[in-house]
Formats: sequence, C-alpha cells, structure tokens
Amino acid sequence: MAEKPEINLSKIGFVGVGVMGRPMAANLVKAGYACTVFDINSVPVKYLVEQGAKSAATLEDVGRNSDILITMVVNDAQFIATLFEPGNAAAAMAPGSVVIGMSTMSRNTVQEVATRLKEMGIDYLDAPVSGGEVGALAGELSIMAGGPDEVMEKCRPVLEVMGKNIYHVGTAAGDGQAVKIINQLMVCVHNAVAAEALTLGTKLGLDKQMLLDIISTSAGNSWIFSNRGPRMVKEEFTPPKSALNILAKDIGFVIDAANRLNHPLVIGSAVHQLYKMAAADGLGLLDDSSIIKLIEKQAGMGDG
Amino acid sequence: MAEKPEINLSKIGFVGVGVMGRPMAANLVKAGYACTVFDINSVPVKYLVEQGAKSAATLEDVGRNSDILITMVVNDAQFIATLFEPGNAAAAMAPGSVVIGMSTMSRNTVQEVATRLKEMGIDYLDAPVSGGEVGALAGELSIMAGGPDEVMEKCRPVLEVMGKNIYHVGTAAGDGQAVKIINQLMVCVHNAVAAEALTLGTKLGLDKQMLLDIISTSAGNSWIFSNRGPRMVKEEFTPPKSALNILAKDIGFVIDAANRLNHPLVIGSAVHQLYKMAAADGLGLLDDSSIIKLIEKQAGMGDG
Repeated sequence: MAEKPEINLSKIGFVGVGVMGRPMAANLVKAGYACTVFDINSVPVKYLVEQGAKSAATLEDVGRNSDILITMVVNDAQFIATLFEPGNAAAAMAPGSVVIGMSTMSRNTVQEVATRLKEMGIDYLDAPVSGGEVGALAGELSIMAGGPDEVMEKCRPVLEVMGKNIYHVGTAAGDGQAVKIINQLMVCVHNAVAAEALTLGTKLGLDKQMLLDIISTSAGNSWIFSNRGPRMVKEEFTPPKSALNILAKDIGFVIDAANRLNHPLVIGSAVHQLYKMAAADGLGLLDDSSIIKLIEKQAGMGDG
Repeated sequence: MAEKPEINLSKIGFVGVGVMGRPMAANLVKAGYACTVFDINSVPVKYLVEQGAKSAATLEDVGRNSDILITMVVNDAQFIATLFEPGNAAAAMAPGSVVIGMSTMSRNTVQEVATRLKEMGIDYLDAPVSGGEVGALAGELSIMAGGPDEVMEKCRPVLEVMGKNIYHVGTAAGDGQAVKIINQLMVCVHNAVAAEALTLGTKLGLDKQMLLDIISTSAGNSWIFSNRGPRMVKEEFTPPKSALNILAKDIGFVIDAANRLNHPLVIGSAVHQLYKMAAADGLGLLDDSSIIKLIEKQAGMGDG
C-alpha cells in the first residue's frame, strides 16, 4: 500500500456518480476542488473527466486521493463494500480524513460504519439530501448532516457547493439519516394517500383534474400532491422524476428504524405494504406516482 | 299552516349559527339579505338579531320566510330533523325555493334528502365548505357545490357573499360532499402521519421543533403539517382551531362512502381507527392536532 498523504481538505473523492452524484461532483469540480471520481458506469465518469475531474482505476486509488471521500451509492451494501472490501477505499485513507455518506441509508448501517471508521482514525459525516436531480444540478440540495461539530465545520464549505439549505441536525452519526427517515415517512404516505384519494374520487364520479385543482389550493394539499398529483392525473410515469423503488427502499428504512426501537407505526407500516405490493407488481422503475396504478388495480379499476 | 309566499331569492333562512354559521349568516345580513335565523343556542341568535337578522320561534317559521334555506348544523340527524320533522322547515317552504346544505355530511344522506325535497318541489344544492372559522369570518370560504346548473346559478350570488373560491363540482346532489370527502381523507391522513412522524423523530432522539423547521420546507411538507405541526410541538391543544371530533366524523364519512361502493381504502381505514381511538381516549374536544397524544401513548411515550 502506498504511503498515506497529508490532509488539507482540498482533495475530494466521489464514489457513485449517477443521476444525483454526477451533478454534485460536477459542481465540486466547477468550484475548484481536485476531484477523483469512481463509478462502475463509465459514461458519467467520462463526462466528469471532461469537466476536469480525475478518474480512478480502483476504489483504493480514490481513497488515497481523498481528504474527503463522498459516497452517493445505491444502497447500504455498496456503501460498505466501497469502504471496507479488501483493497477498497477506507484502508487507503489517512487519519484525519473524512467520509461523507450522502445517499439515504439505514441509520443502523451508518452508525456501524461510523464506529468502524473511527477505529481507523477517519471521521464520518452522515449527510443525506433532498431536492432530487433538479436540486443536485442547481447546487441547491437540502442537506441534513449528523456528526461532531468539528467534522461538520470541516465539511461545511464542501456541502455548501452542493446544497442551499445545510442543516446540522445532530452530533451523532445517523442523526442525518434519522431526519431524512422522518421526511421520507411523510413523503411516502403523502404520495400513497394522494393515489388513494384520487382513485376514490374517480369511483365517486369526480374528475381527477378538478380534484387536483381544488385540493391543491385547499387544506388537503401536500408538496407531494402538488408535485406528483399532475403525473397521476396524466398517467405520465416515464421518465421517472424519482423511481418508485427509491420510496419503497426509503419506507423500508423507516420501518427498520422503528422496529429496532419497538416503536409502533400504524400508518407507516400499512404504507410499507403498499410500496412492496407496487414494486412486486412491476412498478418499481416507473415514477413513484405510479403507485396509483396499484391502488386502481386493487379497486378493480384502471387498465390494471 | 300559513299560505306559502312567493319566491324572489331575497329572503334567506339560516339554521345552525355556531362557530361557522354565525359569521356566515352575519356576512349575509351585511350584504343586505333579509335573514331569519334559528339555533337552539340563543347567544349567537341574539348577536345576529343585533346585526339586523330576524329570529324565528320555530323551524316552520324559518321555512316560511326562506326563499333559500341554508343549514350549517352539526350532523346528518340535525339536518334531517331541521327539514322533515313534523312542523319543521321543509313543509313550510314554497315550490321553487332552495335548500343549501353547507355542513359536511354523509353523501348518502344528502342524496336521500335531495330526492325527498325534489318530490316537494324544493331544489337542493349540496355546498360543503373549507376554510374554517377564519374563512367564515372573512367571507373567504372555499365552497364545493354540487347540483343542477340552474340551481347553482340561482344560489351563486349568495354563495359569493360567504366564499372566495366557489367551485361547481358536479350536477348531482352529493358531488360537493364527494369532493369534500376526498379533501378530508387527505387532511385526516396528513394530520395523523404528522403526529406519527414527529413521535418517531422524538424516539430517534431528534428535536421536534428542528423537524418542524426542516420538513416544513422540504418534500415531506403538507398544509396540515405547517398549520397543525406547531401545535403538536407546543402541545397547544386548546382552544381548538377545529376539534378532533370533527375529523373523526369526517373520516367516518369517507369510509362510509367507500364501503357503499365496496371500494378498498388501506390508508384511510387504518387512519379511521386512529381517530376513533383518539376520540375514545378523550381527545375529541381538543384540537385535532392532539392526535399526537394518542400516538405518543401508543408508543409508551409522553404523559399518556
């Protein structure tokens, strides 16, 4: 293994440059950070190299070139593998360097990973985002960060390149994921009940567009209803703004976190079943608003 | 029975002048309509007489003095009794007069009442409202009206005195209630999931006020979360903006309408149970945001 470099927080590694990670990394390059990127998909890597990033051959290379290593990977397993599989990133990182986990992950995984990194002298900041591809492109994500004050302050300039609202929500690893979980519980329920309401309205003989117009200016409105309701009415489920599988995964994290605390969630658990049914029914890669197709099918309606 | 008068739409009867009905009737008096009011509570009646309304001794008197009879009563039973009990309003009303039902009621009741009135030559307009006491005072309610075009057009000037957004949502009695039901399904679910989310957040070690600040500017926001969330955080459940019993009643109407159509409602029915539990637990007369007290108690938290 090569000698570990000194830390000055100017070198950023970025693992996972998909729909969200690619524009986030591009904004860091544009801001002047020396970025080394890695993804199994070569297309976005090539794009980022054209913007001025370096491409790493291995995750060990990324680790060695990272004062701060940012991950925006698909799931917990990729996150753990990125850091800890033999020959991967963490072992190549210097003491005093920082890992920032920015995808939505299990709070429990994040807590375990933070403990493991700490034993290696590496700091961890838990920093999931909201705002989607639009927010990522504009550098206007909301970032919910959990970690010690000094780690937060080290990372703040980097987060400010990617986000507009930077919240330091707590000092423990997992606090960021905890806030994200609460937000996603509401997003998942609001999306599913929008579908349930529009479907019942149709059964009652009402026009969906009329319901959308009235309720989006009434007490029944939600951010999700205003944003995803029009797609439900137009049955416009591709391309996905955000795939249903993502909400199916997120509501799973909510339930997992509650179960570990033996905390009851009457609404959340009912809605969890609906997302699993929707994914099982083949809707996972469509827009998350496509849950209305499941609800209509359950009611013997639609083209289900 | 006295001779029935001619109809010129200038004389309005108003039955049920409580929190909502009193300011609605006051706005009609202010607009120059000859209003005859009735309520078993003499305090708001006295107030309205001071504003220029006439007080009726009986519901028959109200009927005889109404080209348009507006009801804003507490429940379906009062509505039916107001109109049809021997010696009450409907029998004293002239053919061509109109009843406008403005409280939230069962769609089925409204359909049956409309049929019965039609046999007596009386038109019916179904016109539930949203906007609460604040909207009623300002004459800025949202009104969701269902009924034939010509009845709607007869009543529109009167509705415009009480409301800002007047929606003619369908031509059948019950269409207004149907839209209101859909809105209330969303209100009831959004309120309950806000409580579930804030309670899980507390269990995860997060500060409720911080969650409120972040989520109310994020994708998890709803009108209800912005409006009732602060009361949940401050545990400020009196005086009620709107009593929990009202939402408990409304979600019951949602379930009743769905059951009559054998239409499944996975989320709505789970939430219906929560409101019944909350009412059974003595929260019915508190603000509807007090559902968080039930959720906390179910989780072994709070002062249960």
